Amino acid sequence: MDRRKFVSALGLGLGAAALTACGQDNKDSAKDAAQAGAAAEGAGKSPAKTMEWKLVTAWPKNYPGLGTGANRFAERVTAMSGGRLKVKVYGAGELVPAMGVFDAVRDGSAEMGHSASYYWKGKHPATPFFTAVPFGLTAQEINSWVNFGGGQELWDELYGEFGIKPLPCGNSGTQMGGWFRKEVNSLEDIKGLKIRAPGLAGEIMQRIGATPVQMPGGEVFTSMQTGALDAADWVGPYNDLAFGLHKVADYYYYPGWAEPGAMLEMMINKDKWDALPDDLKAIVKSAAEAENQHIYDEFTAHNAEALKQLVDEHGTQLRRFPDEVLMKLHETSEQVIQDLVAGNDQARRIYESYKSFRESVVPYVAVAEQSALNVRSMVLDQKQPG
Amino acid sequence: MDRRKFVSALGLGLGAAALTACGQDNKDSAKDAAQAGAAAEGAGKSPAKTMEWKLVTAWPKNYPGLGTGANRFAERVTAMSGGRLKVKVYGAGELVPAMGVFDAVRDGSAEMGHSASYYWKGKHPATPFFTAVPFGLTAQEINSWVNFGGGQELWDELYGEFGIKPLPCGNSGTQMGGWFRKEVNSLEDIKGLKIRAPGLAGEIMQRIGATPVQMPGGEVFTSMQTGALDAADWVGPYNDLAFGLHKVADYYYYPGWAEPGAMLEMMINKDKWDALPDDLKAIVKSAAEAENQHIYDEFTAHNAEALKQLVDEHGTQLRRFPDEVLMKLHETSEQVIQDLVAGNDQARRIYESYKSFRESVVPYVAVAEQSALNVRSMVLDQKQPG
Repeated sequence: MDRRKFVSALGLGLGAAALTACGQDNKDSAKDAAQAGAAAEGAGKSPAKTMEWKLVTAWPKNYPGLGTGANRFAERVTAMSGGRLKVKVYGAGELVPAMGVFDAVRDGSAEMGHSASYYWKGKHPATPFFTAVPFGLTAQEINSWVNFGGGQELWDELYGEFGIKPLPCGNSGTQMGGWFRKEVNSLEDIKGLKIRAPGLAGEIMQRIGATPVQMPGGEVFTSMQTGALDAADWVGPYNDLAFGLHKVADYYYYPGWAEPGAMLEMMINKDKWDALPDDLKAIVKSAAEAENQHIYDEFTAHNAEALKQLVDEHGTQLRRFPDEVLMKLHETSEQVIQDLVAGNDQARRIYESYKSFRESVVPYVAVAEQSALNVRSMVLDQKQPG
Repeated sequence: MDRRKFVSALGLGLGAAALTACGQDNKDSAKDAAQAGAAAEGAGKSPAKTMEWKLVTAWPKNYPGLGTGANRFAERVTAMSGGRLKVKVYGAGELVPAMGVFDAVRDGSAEMGHSASYYWKGKHPATPFFTAVPFGLTAQEINSWVNFGGGQELWDELYGEFGIKPLPCGNSGTQMGGWFRKEVNSLEDIKGLKIRAPGLAGEIMQRIGATPVQMPGGEVFTSMQTGALDAADWVGPYNDLAFGLHKVADYYYYPGWAEPGAMLEMMINKDKWDALPDDLKAIVKSAAEAENQHIYDEFTAHNAEALKQLVDEHGTQLRRFPDEVLMKLHETSEQVIQDLVAGNDQARRIYESYKSFRESVVPYVAVAEQSALNVRSMVLDQKQPG
C-alpha cells in the first residue's frame, strides 16, 4: 500500500490524516476481526445481547481533538447501551490505514469509521460539501444545513449508494490559513510558492500560480526547514503548536479561507445500522450529535490557549492574507467548485442545496453573530479583523 | 400567584417565558403527580423497570425552538432508554408556571426542567453567566467554557446547593437588539424611551436613561401599537415574526448586545439524578448535549428564513445601533456586572472564570471565525456589518 499515492490521489485536509503511521496492509487481520465479530453476534437477525463494534479512524489514536473525540464517542455508546454495544476505537494504521476507513466501513470489515467526508472525493465529487469547501459554511451553518436545511437527506442518499449511513461528528471550527516562511504581500508573492495545500485548496493554489505539494504529514516539518516547502497548511493552533510548525516558519496566516469549519463524520455500515434495534440506533445518533459539539468545544478552548502561546511565547507573527489574494482565491474557488460538480447531476443537486442555504444564512449571520463579534472588537478596543 | 410580580422581580429574557399562560397555582396537582410518580417507581433504592419523569418547561408547549427542543429531548431519552425512562413534557402553566420551574425541580415535584439559568437571578446573582451576559460569550464560546473551561464544574457547584444537576440544552444564537418605533441615531434618542428590556438589559437601559418596562409577553404587541411602549426586545427573527412585532414597529436593531448567545438549561432533581443507573445518566447527558446543538440549528435555519421574510415581504428596516450607544451600553454593562457579583464570593469566582475564558477566546475567534465571516462579506461584496 503506497501511502504517498493515496494522499496525492485524494488530497487531504485536516492535516492529521496524513500523520498516520500507515504500516502494512492490515486487510487480513481486519477480515479476521470481522469474522470474529460476526461469530460473536450470532447468525440470527436479532442482535445478540452484547456486540462489540470496531470504530476505525482516519487519525492516530488519541490525536488531540480528533482521536480524543472518537474515544469519547465510543465511551458514550458503550455507557448509554449499558455495554450492550461496546465500541472499540482503532487508530489509523492499526486495522486499516487512514485512507482505508471508507472502504472498511463499506465492506463491513469495520462497523464504524470516524473521518472527514472530503477525504473521499475520489469516490464521489460531492463529498467535500459534507466537510468544508472554500468560502463555504461555518461550523454552525453546516450543522444547520445538515439538520434543518436538507443536508442530512442528501448525505444519506449519497452515502447510501455506498452502503454507509453518515452522521456529523465533530468540527475543527475555522482553520488557519497556514504557515509561511516569508510574508505574502501580494498575489505576486504567491506565484511559484511551494505549498503543502490539501484537497480543493491545492487545486485553487495551483490555479493562482503556486506549486502545491502533496506530502505525508511526517515530512512537512523537515521540508519547511530545508526550504523544500515555503508554506504549509495544517489544521489550527491546537494541532499546529504540538506539531512544532512555529519552529520552521515565522508567519501564521488567517483566515482559513479553504475550511471555514471542517465537519467530521461518523460512518456506519448500513446493513449493520439497519439491523440495530431502535434504542441502539437512537443511542448512536445522539452520541454522534453530542460529540459533534464536544469536539468543536475542545478545539475552540485549546486553539485559544495554543494561539496565545504561539504569539506570546514563540513570537509567531499573525498575518491576514491581503485583499487581492483573498479576492482571487474566492473567484478561483467558485470555478473549481463549478468544475467539481460539472457533469454529475447528484453533485450539482447537493451543491445547489448547499449554495441556497448559504444564500439564506449569510445575511442573517451578518446581523447576528458577525455583528456581535465586530461590535465586541470595537468596545474592547481590539483591532477588528478584516 | 402574581405573574407580573414574578416577571418584574426576576427580569426575563428569551421573551418566550413571558408568553406563558400562567393559570392558577398548580402546586397541588404537581404534588399529586409527584406522589403518583414516586408510587410508580416503588420504594426501593434501585429504579423500577419503567419510570415516567415529568419535564416542566419555562415555555409554552411546542413553542418554536424552545418547546420543540424540549419535545425532542424527551423523545431522545425515551427512545434511547427503550422506554425505561419515559419523559413527558409539560408546557409552562400546565403543571407549574414558567417561573416555577426551578422550584419544581428543586423540590422534586418535577424531575426535570427546561429553562434558562438567568431566570433565577433572584435565587443567586451568578445564574446569568450560564445563559448570557451583555457583550459576553457567543453560543460556541459558552459551550467551550462549560465543557472545557471549567464552567460545568462551577455550575454543578452552584446548582448543587439547590439540589439540582444542570446541563446545557440549547441556544438561541445571537439575538436581535429589538424593535423600535423610531430610529435611534444617538444616545440622546435612548433617553426616556419606554422599552421592554428584560433582565440585565433592562437595568443597563435604565442607567443610560431609558425607562425599562416589565410586562408579560401578551401585552407587548398592544402596548407597542398604542405607544405605551416605544421599543421591545423579544428574541430573534424566528419568534419575532410569529409574534407579529413587524406590524407595530418599522425598525429592527442589531446586534443583540445583551445576549450574544443565550444558552438554555436542562435541570434535573439531584436526588433523582444521583439515583439513576449509569446508563440512564449517560443517556440523559448525551440527549441534552445533542439537543444543545439541535435547538441552535433550528434557530439558525429558521431565523435566516424569517429575517428574509421580514425584510423582503414586510418592509422591516434593519438598523445597527450607533457606535456611541454601543460604547455606552458596554461601559454600563461592565458596571452592572460588577455590581451583580459584588459581595458574593461564589458569584465573583464564576465571573472570574467566565471573564478569563473570554479573554482567552476573543483573540482566537478574531483570527478564526470572525475573520472568515468578514472576509466572506468582502468577497461576496456584502456590506460588512459593524
